[in-house]
Amino acid sequence: MIGIDRIIENALLEDIHTGDITTMAVVPEKRRAGARLIAKESMVLAGIDVAARVFALVDPDVVFTARFTDGALLKAGDVIADIAGDAAFLLQAERVALNLLQRMCGIATLTARYRQAVTGTGAKVVDTRKTTPGLRQLEKYAVRIGGGSNHRSGLYDAVLIKENHIAAAGGISVAVERARAFVSHTMKIEVETETLDQVAEALNAGVDIIMLDNMDLETMRRAVSLIGGRSLVEASGGVTVETIAEIAATGVDLISVGALTHSARAMDISMLLGE
Amino acid sequence: MIGIDRIIENALLEDIHTGDITTMAVVPEKRRAGARLIAKESMVLAGIDVAARVFALVDPDVVFTARFTDGALLKAGDVIADIAGDAAFLLQAERVALNLLQRMCGIATLTARYRQAVTGTGAKVVDTRKTTPGLRQLEKYAVRIGGGSNHRSGLYDAVLIKENHIAAAGGISVAVERARAFVSHTMKIEVETETLDQVAEALNAGVDIIMLDNMDLETMRRAVSLIGGRSLVEASGGVTVETIAEIAATGVDLISVGALTHSARAMDISMLLGE
Amino acid sequence: MIGIDRIIENALLEDIHTGDITTMAVVPEKRRAGARLIAKESMVLAGIDVAARVFALVDPDVVFTARFTDGALLKAGDVIADIAGDAAFLLQAERVALNLLQRMCGIATLTARYRQAVTGTGAKVVDTRKTTPGLRQLEKYAVRIGGGSNHRSGLYDAVLIKENHIAAAGGISVAVERARAFVSHTMKIEVETETLDQVAEALNAGVDIIMLDNMDLETMRRAVSLIGGRSLVEASGGVTVETIAEIAATGVDLISVGALTHSARAMDISMLLGE
Amino acid sequence: MIGIDRIIENALLEDIHTGDITTMAVVPEKRRAGARLIAKESMVLAGIDVAARVFALVDPDVVFTARFTDGALLKAGDVIADIAGDAAFLLQAERVALNLLQRMCGIATLTARYRQAVTGTGAKVVDTRKTTPGLRQLEKYAVRIGGGSNHRSGLYDAVLIKENHIAAAGGISVAVERARAFVSHTMKIEVETETLDQVAEALNAGVDIIMLDNMDLETMRRAVSLIGGRSLVEASGGVTVETIAEIAATGVDLISVGALTHSARAMDISMLLGE
Amino acid sequence: MIGIDRIIENALLEDIHTGDITTMAVVPEKRRAGARLIAKESMVLAGIDVAARVFALVDPDVVFTARFTDGALLKAGDVIADIAGDAAFLLQAERVALNLLQRMCGIATLTARYRQAVTGTGAKVVDTRKTTPGLRQLEKYAVRIGGGSNHRSGLYDAVLIKENHIAAAGGISVAVERARAFVSHTMKIEVETETLDQVAEALNAGVDIIMLDNMDLETMRRAVSLIGGRSLVEASGGVTVETIAEIAATGVDLISVGALTHSARAMDISMLLGE
Amino acid sequence: MIGIDRIIENALLEDIHTGDITTMAVVPEKRRAGARLIAKESMVLAGIDVAARVFALVDPDVVFTARFTDGALLKAGDVIADIAGDAAFLLQAERVALNLLQRMCGIATLTARYRQAVTGTGAKVVDTRKTTPGLRQLEKYAVRIGGGSNHRSGLYDAVLIKENHIAAAGGISVAVERARAFVSHTMKIEVETETLDQVAEALNAGVDIIMLDNMDLETMRRAVSLIGGRSLVEASGGVTVETIAEIAATGVDLISVGALTHSARAMDISMLLGE
Repeated sequence: MIGIDRIIENALLEDIHTGDITTMAVVPEKRRAGARLIAKESMVLAGIDVAARVFALVDPDVVFTARFTDGALLKAGDVIADIAGDAAFLLQAERVALNLLQRMCGIATLTARYRQAVTGTGAKVVDTRKTTPGLRQLEKYAVRIGGGSNHRSGLYDAVLIKENHIAAAGGISVAVERARAFVSHTMKIEVETETLDQVAEALNAGVDIIMLDNMDLETMRRAVSLIGGRSLVEASGGVTVETIAEIAATGVDLISVGALTHSARAMDISMLLGE
Repeated sequence: MIGIDRIIENALLEDIHTGDITTMAVVPEKRRAGARLIAKESMVLAGIDVAARVFALVDPDVVFTARFTDGALLKAGDVIADIAGDAAFLLQAERVALNLLQRMCGIATLTARYRQAVTGTGAKVVDTRKTTPGLRQLEKYAVRIGGGSNHRSGLYDAVLIKENHIAAAGGISVAVERARAFVSHTMKIEVETETLDQVAEALNAGVDIIMLDNMDLETMRRAVSLIGGRSLVEASGGVTVETIAEIAATGVDLISVGALTHSARAMDISMLLGE
Repeated sequence: MIGIDRIIENALLEDIHTGDITTMAVVPEKRRAGARLIAKESMVLAGIDVAARVFALVDPDVVFTARFTDGALLKAGDVIADIAGDAAFLLQAERVALNLLQRMCGIATLTARYRQAVTGTGAKVVDTRKTTPGLRQLEKYAVRIGGGSNHRSGLYDAVLIKENHIAAAGGISVAVERARAFVSHTMKIEVETETLDQVAEALNAGVDIIMLDNMDLETMRRAVSLIGGRSLVEASGGVTVETIAEIAATGVDLISVGALTHSARAMDISMLLGE
Repeated sequence: MIGIDRIIENALLEDIHTGDITTMAVVPEKRRAGARLIAKESMVLAGIDVAARVFALVDPDVVFTARFTDGALLKAGDVIADIAGDAAFLLQAERVALNLLQRMCGIATLTARYRQAVTGTGAKVVDTRKTTPGLRQLEKYAVRIGGGSNHRSGLYDAVLIKENHIAAAGGISVAVERARAFVSHTMKIEVETETLDQVAEALNAGVDIIMLDNMDLETMRRAVSLIGGRSLVEASGGVTVETIAEIAATGVDLISVGALTHSARAMDISMLLGE
Repeated sequence: MIGIDRIIENALLEDIHTGDITTMAVVPEKRRAGARLIAKESMVLAGIDVAARVFALVDPDVVFTARFTDGALLKAGDVIADIAGDAAFLLQAERVALNLLQRMCGIATLTARYRQAVTGTGAKVVDTRKTTPGLRQLEKYAVRIGGGSNHRSGLYDAVLIKENHIAAAGGISVAVERARAFVSHTMKIEVETETLDQVAEALNAGVDIIMLDNMDLETMRRAVSLIGGRSLVEASGGVTVETIAEIAATGVDLISVGALTHSARAMDISMLLGE
Repeated sequence: MIGIDRIIENALLEDIHTGDITTMAVVPEKRRAGARLIAKESMVLAGIDVAARVFALVDPDVVFTARFTDGALLKAGDVIADIAGDAAFLLQAERVALNLLQRMCGIATLTARYRQAVTGTGAKVVDTRKTTPGLRQLEKYAVRIGGGSNHRSGLYDAVLIKENHIAAAGGISVAVERARAFVSHTMKIEVETETLDQVAEALNAGVDIIMLDNMDLETMRRAVSLIGGRSLVEASGGVTVETIAEIAATGVDLISVGALTHSARAMDISMLLGE
């Protein structure tokens, strides 16, 4: 949790900085309080442990009792967690905890909608690197909770040969050859293709995954047929919750959706302080 | 720029980590390339200097030439910037630059829509603390570029006495009194109210800003009338682009909108690499 | 406390670095010891929780029992706190704890002298940004403990338009106008003035605070009269404990004193180790 | 300079944080300006390179031209340096540069007074570990510029066996023996003594330096005579600029003065902005 | 290079800390000097850019001219690089540059010996996670320069199911099934096996890589035959430069060798300073 | 332990990064497990507290029970420690703990061999600055555990005037004189010599330590005789376990050996997980 602790600590420093002056001025010291996190709309819960950790880092003595675990389907009004501790600390942790939790629930909930749309097909919904700078690990976790799968974590943990790489190398075959010689045997190699000719060339190069980039449905179907299971097939480009089902029906294995992380809206969750 | 450099460096480390293995394997060393950042939809530009800085931190020798400045209204197809440098460095900086730029443009563009809806009224559209952890400074900047105004930066730079603080202190008057005694004379004091009685109490306490939290339009009108210019008035709670105009018509000075930062979708911008 | 923990950790690393070689060499392991912090002169206590935190960060098992709370008036010989723990850890924490505590007590004590000098007037003694780099938060806290008030925390949390800004903008009015358009509605605006004409111009511009910079007593009196309660009035410039009373008598609201933080001497406190 | 850069960067982040809002609002972009650093009283200059570095880290294009080097004796009115650059950057760097420079000059100037008082004796004026947390390296440098010498940097680079260590070890001889066996051969060993008996014991143990702690002048004289040049002799405890000369006259080699760093007041230096 | 810059900066701070006191005391300021890095034994060069970067971070004005690029076979006496700059900076950078370069050359040279031993076989020599904490990226780079290949970078970028995981999951099949459901489609899955039965089970589970852990040569041969190219095969466990050839002869694809990084000795390289 | 905690945290982040995907996928949550650290060859134990700290930082609830303390002579098969905790956490901590422990034991064991070779002479075996960047503190500790002594920690805590410094200063005498004037009285001064003439010059300059650099045995003997106990004498340069005894026999006080830290191989230790 060291990496996640650093994210949370930075978020707390960003918000509290030299002090929560309102609380310092107004709230008596050592005033005990209880609080509840409440879902104000239906959603998929994601990030409950992260929210709990925010309170723990503000004050180790806060008691955070989650009523649900990640992946739970919440409806408006559900109490997500009960929190007890010093009132000042609860107020200081509130916004950071909510900012993280609402964002993670937003991503999980949006992912679940895409996931739902491809039910019954063999296609997986996968994320992209279009994540919020600094929060990728949390956002990719939320995608998993929403029923999606993760694409590579960054530029370092899988090979994805795109149009620009192909151009720079002088063709798919030579690019794949160079990649295979260079990278660890543990790394898979994916190639982005825009035409059936490129698909064929990638297939001949023996790649592990072929990305069909911005192809129309008919071309995708022909690509899937051409590949014939000899590599994984990923559809990519401008996928929406309206179009994902017919894309899935082409037989692709994976459909990557940037919107999961770059355009999810925050879920409505609030903290209610009581005695 | 030290603070922003740290944000960018962390984002680069998150994405590149031990190395962009595809580029290292496939792209020849010292291959010069040009690239263009292209708007794929209409938007308000925000963050062009941040994008430029990403490339500069990856390699000081990259030449980044912006064609627009922040605040420009872009239409689909507009070339935002021309970039020239070592191909490997352009590819390594691409995603981080776009992730930041697309998010900032998304916020500026959404803010402009809210701002447009209140044109002709005296009301300002203001942001909240519901920002992405770690990126608040950049997001609040994008709000300004979109024509919005900023609320406080965090818990440290203004007093906002909320329901929970009032309860803990035992009333608005005592809470305001304590705040005034505690904080710097440079700090303004705002109180969140839910009823006209609370508005009256806040007014008597001489606060600088009164927040009308989740009031209906009629109550807001009466509150504005009651306050009569003796403090700034901020409307808050569930504001949407559909409802903001009639809220503005009540005569409030400020309308705060969490959605500006917590639910803006990323604008569609891509980088096209050429020779 | 995350921000303060980082200050303390850096201070410990600075002093201990690769190890307290004397203690490692000479003091047997797991030797229990008690210690007392003792005031060697009269002073206002400030920073007792910071001192306690130093010991806690060196070893969570140290028991630190404060006999006074911040703000207490100590006389020479008073035992401030009893400490018990592993002798090696007490010795390692000693200097950093004292360096912070002595400095904070020095500031609080000096502030109290200035505060005493204006007793019976309505004037507040306020600090400046002339603080020790890296320790501003702690030093501004000590000022509050000494009975002073805080001016802005930094360049980011209030507008202070100085001579150079006025010159760059082309006059007070235009500078204030620009500031009001730019900054958050939560920010107050202060203008530094050197003549009564400037005071009048600032007043017309509707600023929240007017600073009278290096004016003589008679000019200050006339400025206070001219302003007539329409803004806060701050006296600034070369204030000493000898001159502050007559400045306060002019009717200003605030008197800022750089010396509180840039020239306080450390109070004499020592740690006595026993069995 | 990496270590010093980190000190400066933290100081800048502390002061500027999310932005110098006054300057951002009021000062036009790309406005060139000149500035001068001016001594407002006589002093020993120390820290001119540190001040220059602050401006360079805010903006590498600022041109900083020092008219004096560290160690120079300045009189009131002397122009210390000419600075030219973007007005906004000069204003942002000003306070941090001055805070560091004024403090360093204060320490150098105070040290020079102590140094002056022992002129003609063989005694060196040395500092202690009673420095500002986070700034020790800069403060010890300022002591050297003022004509003083440095004691150890921290707990890690010399052995200083104090009263508490002696008690824990069971005597000076055993403590010295343990230290010699443990530490590097490059480390000197110093023992704090309070009586002539302890001096004799330390001498027998063959230590490199003997500290005479809070002894009266007569005892110091007898200790110096007893030691007879077989180790360095350091006087310590409550030394003032009034008492240091007669302490030096006892024949000690070194006189350590905590006040050099814990109680120096800031020198008066200001930055004047022009065209 | 941000990640590597941080490694180098920490190394410089570790060594120089508060200052290179010998150089500060003894070497005149602004004294130009030249220096040469000289190989004192034959080796494979690795890390020349890292060494150059050390000098650049100490002083951007140092001119570092490499005569060889990484991978070059050096013999005793070869001049690796010519360096020119301020003498003080060359002396400060020397040890850190050498410590990194000597270690990286040591790893590359040892790797080349193992690589040489398997020439003519299809087996690759691969590294492990048994690297120096903090230097993994540099050490894995040196392995590549020596002709080796990289295994996974850490626990995050490939699945390696070991004995303990198998036990916790209750068998290879279920462990593989869980891993496949959990991880990104970009991740390969490897299983550690100790018996031919386990090899068969892993094969049935469809894993990408099968590790033969501490098997004798005969068992390895039978495992390779059993697998028949349906997965990559990695030999692991106590491999030495004496035994690697016969292991390679069993037909395995990969041989992992912890000693490449955990037991390489530093190559002998020195810096000779001249005028 | 703050400095060591940072080393460990960085090592954990390097290895685990975004997560131990194998363990996350395969090992059930909250599965308790026990583990043993086992020596696979004979060695001197060093670093047991560091290993324990790795587990504590991954999870404070892990119970780590060491069976030996640092300095113990282990034989193959010895159980070094028993560990109990959540299986997932044990697996995540394993590699980092072993990487540190194996390296430290390697250094201690190698040092003990050198130490053994000089038994009966008065010579100490000392380390150098040829340590692993980032791990110097741990490695120098391991040298002490192995019976060696430490040379200076870095460039900041002792003066070592080398060939290049002498050349830059224009001779040994002037270099020593400058150093004595500049550095703290707590610092010892050592000079590197290559000829008997230089030894004589250093002796006249009154240095604390004379290094005999790469001298043959006969010259060393003569140097020791010439010095006659008036300074410490350190032999340096290409010392091996085969040659150290005859070097010690020349009567030098100290023999510095770079190989202790730059070329120690890791000891073989493994962690065995059980129920």
